[in-house]
Amino acid sequence: MLERDLIQSVGFRNVVSDGEATGYRFRVRIPSYRGMSASLIDGISVAVDGAEPVPAHVPTWTLGGRTYTLEQLWASEGVRWPLEEAAVVTVPCPGGLAPGTHELAVEIRLRMSYIPLEHQPTVVRSAKRLTLSPETSGDGRFRYGVSLYSHMHDYGTVLDLDAALASIADVGATGVEILGEGHVPGYPEPSAEWIDAWFAGIERHGLEPTNYGSWIDTRLRPGRSMTVEEGAVLLGRDLRLAARLGFGFVRPKIGVVSSDLVPDPIWEGVVERCLETAQDLGIVICPEIHAPTPIRHRVVEDYVAFIERTGTEHFGLLIDTGIFQDRPIPLREGETRESRPAFLDGIATDPADLALVAEHVVFVQAKFHDIDEDLTDRNIPWEPVLRALADIGYSGYLSSAYEGDRSPWRSIEQVRRHHALLRRLESEL
Amino acid sequence: MLERDLIQSVGFRNVVSDGEATGYRFRVRIPSYRGMSASLIDGISVAVDGAEPVPAHVPTWTLGGRTYTLEQLWASEGVRWPLEEAAVVTVPCPGGLAPGTHELAVEIRLRMSYIPLEHQPTVVRSAKRLTLSPETSGDGRFRYGVSLYSHMHDYGTVLDLDAALASIADVGATGVEILGEGHVPGYPEPSAEWIDAWFAGIERHGLEPTNYGSWIDTRLRPGRSMTVEEGAVLLGRDLRLAARLGFGFVRPKIGVVSSDLVPDPIWEGVVERCLETAQDLGIVICPEIHAPTPIRHRVVEDYVAFIERTGTEHFGLLIDTGIFQDRPIPLREGETRESRPAFLDGIATDPADLALVAEHVVFVQAKFHDIDEDLTDRNIPWEPVLRALADIGYSGYLSSAYEGDRSPWRSIEQVRRHHALLRRLESEL
Repeated sequence: MLERDLIQSVGFRNVVSDGEATGYRFRVRIPSYRGMSASLIDGISVAVDGAEPVPAHVPTWTLGGRTYTLEQLWASEGVRWPLEEAAVVTVPCPGGLAPGTHELAVEIRLRMSYIPLEHQPTVVRSAKRLTLSPETSGDGRFRYGVSLYSHMHDYGTVLDLDAALASIADVGATGVEILGEGHVPGYPEPSAEWIDAWFAGIERHGLEPTNYGSWIDTRLRPGRSMTVEEGAVLLGRDLRLAARLGFGFVRPKIGVVSSDLVPDPIWEGVVERCLETAQDLGIVICPEIHAPTPIRHRVVEDYVAFIERTGTEHFGLLIDTGIFQDRPIPLREGETRESRPAFLDGIATDPADLALVAEHVVFVQAKFHDIDEDLTDRNIPWEPVLRALADIGYSGYLSSAYEGDRSPWRSIEQVRRHHALLRRLESEL
Repeated sequence: MLERDLIQSVGFRNVVSDGEATGYRFRVRIPSYRGMSASLIDGISVAVDGAEPVPAHVPTWTLGGRTYTLEQLWASEGVRWPLEEAAVVTVPCPGGLAPGTHELAVEIRLRMSYIPLEHQPTVVRSAKRLTLSPETSGDGRFRYGVSLYSHMHDYGTVLDLDAALASIADVGATGVEILGEGHVPGYPEPSAEWIDAWFAGIERHGLEPTNYGSWIDTRLRPGRSMTVEEGAVLLGRDLRLAARLGFGFVRPKIGVVSSDLVPDPIWEGVVERCLETAQDLGIVICPEIHAPTPIRHRVVEDYVAFIERTGTEHFGLLIDTGIFQDRPIPLREGETRESRPAFLDGIATDPADLALVAEHVVFVQAKFHDIDEDLTDRNIPWEPVLRALADIGYSGYLSSAYEGDRSPWRSIEQVRRHHALLRRLESEL
């Protein structure tokens, strides 16, 4: 699937040649209800951040993997701009564009044969603020990924698996996190065809599976809680499916028994029964430390005690960065401070507390809610969070998990802003 | 792909048993970022048009093709409400709902194990105005279809082929109209896999291919017009592809040479060279009579003269019902009467003029722009149009072509309203 806006967020990046940025490029879907022969294109003018537009004949066009000047398109045979394929437009710009977000305004010109000549070419204007893919060196301090949870409500309505994987690869991330009972059609028994398509997609986009989210739904049966045996069956099933799909971490979301989210005590027996399976499959089970639970909390102490008692290397902590949120999530329409969980105002865990559990942190779910066009996160203090993670020697994944406003397509831009922000901060550490 | 709203337009229909409506049903996607075991469902209450809600335990649930009461869901093993599958909710209602649009308001209750008990069950509210699938007898005066053109900008961004075909079948239509260079990936040479998927989809949804839209892009080469030979190559290619995909009609959209859309004179030579191919393939070539061209016009006379001269049965007229538009399309933001083609105010062709070309009308593209919630079309006078079509003995397709506001997903509801309106008017003829 393509993004609704003509100008696609995914694919906006500088063009670098021999270490020098020579221009930028972006993807644009055809402003029509049909595809057409590329010789009908009469150019595209592009203005960035209100500057003088680059004239329509200057940008080059990449279609079907080959790049053409406008004159070459006019003379081309069989080259097409299909409805289902965004064209890549490359604009010369010595030094490239600065990191961050930019306002792009384009005028696309097409020769329509069935419209009177006096109205030709047809000119379609479109503008959008979008985020440049960050430059990545590949030898960073952390590894970067995205959770498909970021695309809640978008996934399956405006975004399919391939488009989601492409968007992850486009920001230079290498890891994809999924929810088993969510992103695996036919869960818990996906078809062989789907599994083949999963691995083909992972490979095509140069990604690796990171963390697989599962649930231990302790309220599965109305009127009674879950037994350890029942829970172990569920977790074991997810461990096996996760391993089959190439994941190394499984985050079981465990039912709670209190207002401050203390997990059902069956967790310990359930996990213990599954440790051998986890070891056999090479998986680390990692429950999340999630607001309103801070690091200094009985829940965390219990998890650490479990690790120490069993000596296992297949259980660790997943840190959800929502615990560091130090400014409130804005009230939604009709919402009051009283009508929603208090932790949405932010529990502001001190990132330095990570030192208390340094050796047990195996995965970071980089939860966030809103990043503005200047790449300022309105809720999470990323600079101290990244510094604390660096200080404890964490070198694993930062897996972006967007949890803000669910307007269609917003998640795509927000994830791009998040990665641009994280990369900038990492380079300044 | 599913529709963005929790309540899906596609699938809203009365449940009829032994000729009696016993209730209604609709589809709803899971209000979560994950699928879940069906035993976690705590019911759905449903209110129609502001009436007292049907209590949450009353409706039945169809998941994976099997239907359950709420109590049966609670006791079920392995039944799931997946993220990618809308549940079908059936509500008892003797006599069913009246034809037309209705306001549905639902409260969906789910037991979330990871939320404190005092906030359980989680209740999600949603409301939507949607159109009941029309009752169809199958022995109507006309045949009913939909053009995928209706979903311009939706197709490929929020709607895929399977969802589009399902939506057509859901209104009791049997015909699907496509645009070759638009809805056929890899045009003009789709893969064998895509062709297999096309026929599988057609069969799965009980549809037949009707009309295939093509273009004779006379401005293909900058600075010069197209020769008859070049045009014949293009049309011949589309005729063969259309036949391969099972279509019986091909509408070539021909480049124009005047302000009132007189087609390039090559049309006659191009079509004449392709008549034998059309005959071999069993296809009727049918250029559209489209506003601002009325029925009493030189263009139509030329087409009729061509039929009479050649005696062909493989050329006819496609009537676009936009020619009957008798009220203006509202001005869009920033648009003035002067800045847009005058025909958007409506050329108000008299439907009775159809009698002048009665024996040549082979296909009707049922163009429309806006149908309100009382099923009143704001632009096209359907009652006299349908009566005129009946009067000339037309019994072919009415292929809905929505051309109104392109807000995402709007096209789906508009097509449903169109079919509800057409069926009602046909029953009153």
